[in-house]
Amino acid sequence: MSTLGRLRQLIFGKSLPTSRLSHEKLPNILALPIFSSDALSSNAYATEAILGVLVLATADGAGGALHYAVPIAIGISILLAIVVVSYIQIINAYPDGGGAYPVSRDNLGTVPALVAAASLLIDYVLTVATSVAAGVAALVTMATDLAANNPANHHFQSMSNLLNGNITAFCVFSIVLIMVGNLRGVKESGVAFALPTYLFITSLLLTIGVGMVRLHLGIHNAQPLPPEALVQANHKLFLHSIGIYLLLQGFSQGCTALTGVEAISNTVPLFRQPQVKNAVITMVTMGVLAIVMFIGLTVLTDGYHIRAIDQNSPHYQSVVGLVAQQAWPASWHFMFFVLQISTALVLILAANTAFAGFPQLASMLARDNFLPRQLANLGDRLSFNNGIIVLSVAACFLIYIFKGVVDSLLSLYAIGVFTSFTLAQTGMVRRWNRIRGPRWWVGFTINATGAVATGAVTLIIAVSKFADGNIISEHFHFGKYHPHYGAWMVIVLVPILVMMFQKINAHYKDMAQQLSVENYVPVVPQKNVVLVIVPRVHRGVVEALNYARLVSDDVRAVYVEVNPEATAPLKAAWEKWSQGIPLVIMESPYRSLIRPLLLYIDAVQKEREDDIVTVVVPEAITREWWHKILHNQAGPLLRLYLASRRDVIVTNVRYFLDK
Amino acid sequence: MSTLGRLRQLIFGKSLPTSRLSHEKLPNILALPIFSSDALSSNAYATEAILGVLVLATADGAGGALHYAVPIAIGISILLAIVVVSYIQIINAYPDGGGAYPVSRDNLGTVPALVAAASLLIDYVLTVATSVAAGVAALVTMATDLAANNPANHHFQSMSNLLNGNITAFCVFSIVLIMVGNLRGVKESGVAFALPTYLFITSLLLTIGVGMVRLHLGIHNAQPLPPEALVQANHKLFLHSIGIYLLLQGFSQGCTALTGVEAISNTVPLFRQPQVKNAVITMVTMGVLAIVMFIGLTVLTDGYHIRAIDQNSPHYQSVVGLVAQQAWPASWHFMFFVLQISTALVLILAANTAFAGFPQLASMLARDNFLPRQLANLGDRLSFNNGIIVLSVAACFLIYIFKGVVDSLLSLYAIGVFTSFTLAQTGMVRRWNRIRGPRWWVGFTINATGAVATGAVTLIIAVSKFADGNIISEHFHFGKYHPHYGAWMVIVLVPILVMMFQKINAHYKDMAQQLSVENYVPVVPQKNVVLVIVPRVHRGVVEALNYARLVSDDVRAVYVEVNPEATAPLKAAWEKWSQGIPLVIMESPYRSLIRPLLLYIDAVQKEREDDIVTVVVPEAITREWWHKILHNQAGPLLRLYLASRRDVIVTNVRYFLDK
Repeated sequence: MSTLGRLRQLIFGKSLPTSRLSHEKLPNILALPIFSSDALSSNAYATEAILGVLVLATADGAGGALHYAVPIAIGISILLAIVVVSYIQIINAYPDGGGAYPVSRDNLGTVPALVAAASLLIDYVLTVATSVAAGVAALVTMATDLAANNPANHHFQSMSNLLNGNITAFCVFSIVLIMVGNLRGVKESGVAFALPTYLFITSLLLTIGVGMVRLHLGIHNAQPLPPEALVQANHKLFLHSIGIYLLLQGFSQGCTALTGVEAISNTVPLFRQPQVKNAVITMVTMGVLAIVMFIGLTVLTDGYHIRAIDQNSPHYQSVVGLVAQQAWPASWHFMFFVLQISTALVLILAANTAFAGFPQLASMLARDNFLPRQLANLGDRLSFNNGIIVLSVAACFLIYIFKGVVDSLLSLYAIGVFTSFTLAQTGMVRRWNRIRGPRWWVGFTINATGAVATGAVTLIIAVSKFADGNIISEHFHFGKYHPHYGAWMVIVLVPILVMMFQKINAHYKDMAQQLSVENYVPVVPQKNVVLVIVPRVHRGVVEALNYARLVSDDVRAVYVEVNPEATAPLKAAWEKWSQGIPLVIMESPYRSLIRPLLLYIDAVQKEREDDIVTVVVPEAITREWWHKILHNQAGPLLRLYLASRRDVIVTNVRYFLDK
Repeated sequence: MSTLGRLRQLIFGKSLPTSRLSHEKLPNILALPIFSSDALSSNAYATEAILGVLVLATADGAGGALHYAVPIAIGISILLAIVVVSYIQIINAYPDGGGAYPVSRDNLGTVPALVAAASLLIDYVLTVATSVAAGVAALVTMATDLAANNPANHHFQSMSNLLNGNITAFCVFSIVLIMVGNLRGVKESGVAFALPTYLFITSLLLTIGVGMVRLHLGIHNAQPLPPEALVQANHKLFLHSIGIYLLLQGFSQGCTALTGVEAISNTVPLFRQPQVKNAVITMVTMGVLAIVMFIGLTVLTDGYHIRAIDQNSPHYQSVVGLVAQQAWPASWHFMFFVLQISTALVLILAANTAFAGFPQLASMLARDNFLPRQLANLGDRLSFNNGIIVLSVAACFLIYIFKGVVDSLLSLYAIGVFTSFTLAQTGMVRRWNRIRGPRWWVGFTINATGAVATGAVTLIIAVSKFADGNIISEHFHFGKYHPHYGAWMVIVLVPILVMMFQKINAHYKDMAQQLSVENYVPVVPQKNVVLVIVPRVHRGVVEALNYARLVSDDVRAVYVEVNPEATAPLKAAWEKWSQGIPLVIMESPYRSLIRPLLLYIDAVQKEREDDIVTVVVPEAITREWWHKILHNQAGPLLRLYLASRRDVIVTNVRYFLDK
């Protein structure tokens, strides 16, 4: 293997043969944790997102508005159930994997499909950014807890300060780690990927169970809630009443609980036989788990009167963390740590799923000529890696501008997810209407319900995101807390991406037409004039002349006389080494190397109509990289100047300097 | 002219033909101001540099140590006279232009010559940095004066604050301006370049004359000196006595008065006939002017009890400015402005001379194979421009690290200048000793005196620069004032540059030996196998096939089967368009494009010993730059992978997409 190849393998890992990719089928016991890490991990932030909005209506500290969290969570859970059932129809209809893009493309047409694709690409970026930010928030929660409970331990204090003060840096570092892992080729299917998710599911369900029982029995915890979780110290101003507007805001933010639900419908081909049945079972299991966790968590926050802490506070703890602190008796406090660590791990897995999904969708778009064709084949990792890098850079950019604050990132998140939900469901509605198989009206009704529900939510989110630019920021423009800042970006970015897809597509269509061989009568060149650039006579030049003679019987050597003193020695050497090849000497009054060459090429091209001019440039290949600087780089320069000339071909004949 | 050519012309100006360069001869009236701007402009900072050291010995405010400035200035003037007379010998001996580099090379050998060259290259950078910094200091002086005399005028106040607060930025901006001017091709010889120098000479001599008369008559100025010029407010600690050490320090810093003296000896070929006589006359005139100005200025600072103001003070004014304020009566205060403006202009001209000298010296070194050969011909401005850009970036870097403080830059300056002086004089001594023409002992004595004097000064400077790292900084390490910081850089950089020159030279020698055609028996290839990379059949591929058939009768098309589904349509199209060329289908289980190609090239190269393989890659040339991204860039990639293969040639056959 070449050095280059070895280097690539070291960084990117071994290539997988095409044949092997398709044979890795997953049993349900692995498929569930691997494909639902994205959806289930949403519980790490969804409840907190609702509370973050409702707290704005708790002026007097009584916190009455917070009780609305439970009905909102129930509403969202109903929506989640509708979406799950709706996507089961898609699994049945598209067993080869039906994301929003192919479903929309097949049933709604190009523009809706591209809108879905753009939304999904943006969502992959947000999945990475949000999951990593929430993962870091889980670690921060743990550090804050350790510091608060061990005030004398300086290590814990400084660790907590370090984490709290460098959230952006930790997020970016995590993304870079995941990126490198993916560039090296992490296998998604290992048992190592399943364990953290099961650990998360188990510890969160246990926390909810224990918490419910203790709440019901009225057993209170010795450990008090931190003051920030009771009074929002950072909020100077509160809205004085809970209105429909704030409820919708809370609902919008909470809808991030649904992110990742569609994952299983894209990955049906990776299930074991019977694929569709297994996928549906896994989908239902995931839906039930997600709903139980979401409602359970929200009921407990209500029971313990927990409020969301501003993530900019130096004593930040996540709502999941606060619940765990209350739910477990003091002697079981280690379960709090287990839950935080498994939360962080499952969130990293969730981020990781985007690294598989993004290049896959890009490849689909490329195959349909909406993205550069190089992205189409996942071949040899190279183009795949481009996707991974683009995704990572974009996610880091978001982390950077939103300073790694989960709530801010979430407000961008839901709009894209629901746009693609709506388009996929609508596509299914059109499909049922067209195909009308047996009992088509059942599927039709389910998907229509899904489409209407998700469509309505999309509208609610869009309106509330744009409206709050006026209402909320009016009250909070002085604070650090800008939960809804930037959601317009997604709405602006989607049409820009769609336009880009279409531009690319138009170019490929133009190209296919121009390059079509139909009715094409080629102009066959009859003569090849080879010009060898001769700076002076040396071995490299002799080799170039030999090559030129092999290629054509009209070879001419061209010498540009930059320094007239050098001409006589050249002529003398030429006598001996010319092999009968004529030497053309071009004067260069302006000491330019390129211009006289261009003039001579012009002259040669005028000699006859049906010829091609090949310019042979002897090029030194040096042993040390810096030696390269010591040689005239006429080749690249000539290539640049001749870039737009037709019927001129530049060929570098290399000679090797071994020391 | 091509778009590229037009763009170049717009930025870099028109090329000059070789013939024209040599015909621009200067009369003395123009030669004096143009070639002595560097030397004469040293007066803008040399006296101030001496005072900046002596003030360290004025603990009690009495300032007795300052009186040593006059004897130091006289000592330096004697040195200047010696150097001028010494250089007149060089003019006589090297009428074709004798800088320190050629004189040392011809008489002392390679290493001394390279030391001289390295010193000179560094000096060119310092000429730019110092002159620009001093020019900006002159403007700052003017602004401070305006602000001090018009306390009610807010424009003047803010202008003064702006200039004082952004010295680095103004210096960098000025360098960029001069750089752009030189990239566009400023002609050095215009009358426009002569006027500012004459203005500077006239106004400074007038200032000195009027000041002397008024000082002699005891007429004192109504305008008082600013308090900073009387007490060094920024210096917390002073050395309590003036010792030999501090005197030598002052002398070292003052020796910057000699910078630029050698200029005329390099430019003899640009004088009118009789060249040598004219050059000598100009040299002597310059020497006399420099000495009169230097001593005159220093005597006046002594007479007015002027001290140097720390350039970091917000009320900085240059010593030349302070002298002018005192020398002219209040009603003639405009002469202060005339002097400041002409000082700034002459300093910019001085900086500009380095932009001609640096590429010229680099070209000499390149011709002797000590720098990349591309620099050898000043051809077509391109390599010339590289030198200009390197010079500007290096000067900006110095400005940046020394914050544009003239005194700090000066302490780097003198060492290189005197090293090259010493080497040039020593070379002349060796030359006289070798040639021994009539009256050789006169020249011998003169140059020997020069060599000993400048050599001794070089030693003094080197020792004092290194010693002060301990003594001065011990006292002032807490202050902002670090006049001697960084002089070691020059002393370290010279041997590094010399080693680099020698490394480059060794490579060129190796290369010449490897490429020598003496006793060379070339291996003549007998066969050229042309492989055309075929992704699918389109017009570009057909054109590439036509070219290949023209070039060889063993043409083979190679198709890499990344996607097996595409093979059948390709085969069908091939039936029609093959022209009898065989199609080689390479499987690619790992979806790699490159690896199967390399395998096939290996196989072809094994077919016979005396063949060459030409790989033809069809390459799309697109109309819009961004279209390029939409095409597989197999060409560059293949070129990279084949870089180290012998007897393989990559040729791109371009096809054009016009829309």
